[in-house]
Amino acid sequence: MNGAQSLLGTFVAAGIDVCFTNPGTSEMHFVAALDKEPGMRAVLGLFEGVVTGAADGYARMAGKPACTLLHLGPGLANGLANLHNARRARSPIVNVVGEHATYHRKLDAPLTSDINGFASPVSGWIRVSESADAVAGDAAAAVQAALLPPGQIATLILPADTAWNPAQRIATPLPVPGLTPADPNAIEAVIAALRSGEPCTLLLNGLGVSEAGLALASRIAQQCGARLFGDTFIARMPRGAGRVDLPRVPYFAEQAEEALAGTRHLILVDTKAPVSFFAYPGRASELAPKDCVIHRLTAPGEDTLHALAAVAEGVGAQGRTPAFGGLVRPALPRGALNPASIAQALGALLPEQAILVNEAATSGFALPAMTAQAPPHDWLDLTGGSIGMGLPAALGAAVACPDRRVVALQADGSAMYTIQSLWTMAREQCDVTIILFSNRKYAILQVEFMRVGAENPGPKAMSMLDLSRPDLDFVALAKGMGVPAVRATDAATFNDALAGSFATPGPFLIEAVL
Amino acid sequence: MNGAQSLLGTFVAAGIDVCFTNPGTSEMHFVAALDKEPGMRAVLGLFEGVVTGAADGYARMAGKPACTLLHLGPGLANGLANLHNARRARSPIVNVVGEHATYHRKLDAPLTSDINGFASPVSGWIRVSESADAVAGDAAAAVQAALLPPGQIATLILPADTAWNPAQRIATPLPVPGLTPADPNAIEAVIAALRSGEPCTLLLNGLGVSEAGLALASRIAQQCGARLFGDTFIARMPRGAGRVDLPRVPYFAEQAEEALAGTRHLILVDTKAPVSFFAYPGRASELAPKDCVIHRLTAPGEDTLHALAAVAEGVGAQGRTPAFGGLVRPALPRGALNPASIAQALGALLPEQAILVNEAATSGFALPAMTAQAPPHDWLDLTGGSIGMGLPAALGAAVACPDRRVVALQADGSAMYTIQSLWTMAREQCDVTIILFSNRKYAILQVEFMRVGAENPGPKAMSMLDLSRPDLDFVALAKGMGVPAVRATDAATFNDALAGSFATPGPFLIEAVL
Repeated sequence: MNGAQSLLGTFVAAGIDVCFTNPGTSEMHFVAALDKEPGMRAVLGLFEGVVTGAADGYARMAGKPACTLLHLGPGLANGLANLHNARRARSPIVNVVGEHATYHRKLDAPLTSDINGFASPVSGWIRVSESADAVAGDAAAAVQAALLPPGQIATLILPADTAWNPAQRIATPLPVPGLTPADPNAIEAVIAALRSGEPCTLLLNGLGVSEAGLALASRIAQQCGARLFGDTFIARMPRGAGRVDLPRVPYFAEQAEEALAGTRHLILVDTKAPVSFFAYPGRASELAPKDCVIHRLTAPGEDTLHALAAVAEGVGAQGRTPAFGGLVRPALPRGALNPASIAQALGALLPEQAILVNEAATSGFALPAMTAQAPPHDWLDLTGGSIGMGLPAALGAAVACPDRRVVALQADGSAMYTIQSLWTMAREQCDVTIILFSNRKYAILQVEFMRVGAENPGPKAMSMLDLSRPDLDFVALAKGMGVPAVRATDAATFNDALAGSFATPGPFLIEAVL
Repeated sequence: MNGAQSLLGTFVAAGIDVCFTNPGTSEMHFVAALDKEPGMRAVLGLFEGVVTGAADGYARMAGKPACTLLHLGPGLANGLANLHNARRARSPIVNVVGEHATYHRKLDAPLTSDINGFASPVSGWIRVSESADAVAGDAAAAVQAALLPPGQIATLILPADTAWNPAQRIATPLPVPGLTPADPNAIEAVIAALRSGEPCTLLLNGLGVSEAGLALASRIAQQCGARLFGDTFIARMPRGAGRVDLPRVPYFAEQAEEALAGTRHLILVDTKAPVSFFAYPGRASELAPKDCVIHRLTAPGEDTLHALAAVAEGVGAQGRTPAFGGLVRPALPRGALNPASIAQALGALLPEQAILVNEAATSGFALPAMTAQAPPHDWLDLTGGSIGMGLPAALGAAVACPDRRVVALQADGSAMYTIQSLWTMAREQCDVTIILFSNRKYAILQVEFMRVGAENPGPKAMSMLDLSRPDLDFVALAKGMGVPAVRATDAATFNDALAGSFATPGPFLIEAVL
């Protein structure tokens, strides 16, 4: 057994059985070890942003980490943006970053870089293995670190000689750390606020938007006349018939302020106080009403379900029935194709237990309402704002849940950051339907240009916000990577394509020209 | 005038007139300012690796920095791999990284990250502008820092309010720092070594491989019977008829050791002692013969041309004629298409003053010999080993040199990291011919797998090194981004396509199926 084999064996013993990879020479012993370890599935990405985004989507749906395999500092660097998103999603991920052999590092070969420096901004845990015998223990510690509630990114740097030298053992999994108990004083303060008769709003994320969390929050809201909101971006939320339909804090600051207006007590459940996504000249960045009292029921990593149950009991809400929605599908749309008719078609046709990965940006405005009472499904957002998460996360979700249909709701500009994901979807024959909203612009930036107080864009500015000249042809791009695709410019064509994809295994891309 | 306008005005005053961009909301005032500054050309990339790789290619050919415009930490992160390559190329680049407004940073909004942390491993200079009035001075300092010999990456972090608040001035350019004089003792030691009669080898890079440097080195070599080598990877080297044909230190360690064997004095000219690209079990990482004496004539940033001239004088080589090559083109190939026939066709057809960007990896072995006596051209290598530099650098070189034909010699696996470059080539109508070596594998890894001492790859390992299942269709990918393309499977088709592209303005891709 060598270090690489001890690493893989330790991962498998700890329940990690998927590795998203983009290896290079310094990782060849890890690659070789794959054939000795039947418990580990390896999924190749053609770019590291695909690898890390897939690990994020996988973790959100599997509830456990995948590992990644990345090639030295620059390989890690290519994966950092989606690790940023994963960090914001609190996704557990174990990165394995190959490094030059211990004795080679000092020579400053071309690929030498400060791997620790690249890893630090996104990692909650970093370690460099310094010998083959240390690898197994380091691997077990990495898995444990990734699972520290609420979940974090653990980066294990693996010098090539620690992978190829002989190793002695596979390490036993370390205990999985538990949630921190909620503060009883915080629970009491929230109960008092809810019983005060003053307007209360619960802002939810994390465990607060799990099925159990939402049911408890809904009971509390009904009992106390409180309002519920979810954060603008949520890593994973159950939705649809039989679930509580949770409104979200709107993206634009002025709409968010309006939504939260009148709140006297803002109760934070597994989240923090709401702030605007960007700063705007002359506008506040903090969105809670100035005169409201902010109560933090739980922070990430704390036992939110216990705290919500205690609050429900404290306000006498146990007997309430959560406000579950029924199954109501819209009719299939006719006529023109636009973001509204696309959302309508999706609501009409969405399969049971689908997984919606939302990177639709401005084209997605109609999706929440049109799918709120569709069959039960999960909804995954872009949590860190770094576009290019949608296609990789859809890939990862499909690997985690091979029996469910994944629907990637994908803006065109964002799609181009990690378009290589399509190839892996084709190779792995993932059941992913990609709805590609092709409006041929960075539409959000055309809105934001005005909102930040810049003057009307001139031709040079407009050319920076525009994706035409030339138009992207996503049908050709999909074909180039082995994914069948069709272009739709009217609702009837779109409906047929969507229904056809839902009925057919494997990936399919619909370019919806808007 | 606002901070963004003062920034652009200062750049233009300092001679920076191209900006490669991928902006977001926090950079909208910079984008707005483009229309107020006619001296700045803005070139949009659909992914940040395109932006930074283009800035690298531009700097190598223009001899001055472009600026980049990147969206917060994650946008910078996506550009880091090609900044790593640029750092190894010693390319001057000024990054402008947008940041949240100064008062917004502390709120930990979704896109907040440790930008300084991301920037540090690749940047020689980093500064955060803290007010609109500071921006002009910071911009001038950034340009000066980028130009510090031999060239480095300067990263200016621009909080949004420093861009939108009023500013007073455009800053005067700061003095461009000069080269450090070479150490006279080092010059004397090198002269003594060359006059010793013992076997000497000059290892060249940087200014040593400029036309003037090569001519001096060739005179010295002839006078003293010394050998010349260039580093394995060089940022830019003049080649072809009328230039000195410089052999390179081979990539594989055992071949490099063989090439350098017998050297008694290894003279380093604007470079450092050769080391192997990766470590291999049981093999030395340092490539110079164990018993040779290493003399450093100059380090990067020192006045290499002066030092070489002094050495030439010291050994009495002034009267020698450099070993310039003549113009000898191979015949056009016939029959099968393979890396050798592709190299032959290129040698036969290469236009005068072409710029060859080499990311051909294993498919490129025949290129140096077949183009050594082609018409004068420049040759650009992947300096940092992070694949995905070829297409962006070709784009940047084309922007820098609009009157010259750029030829991207591009491996398929590497192409996929920054394939979005094609769209910008189409938009800007760059004269780039892409020769896409489509061997449908990570061929280098199949070689390295054996070399690192891993056993024969099993099916899982092989699937990590293989790009088929499905085959990539680069003609479709090019069409998807507006670049005309053709597939060639025999030499005649390839010859015609290559000649056609050289005769036709704009980008063109030839998928050479191997």
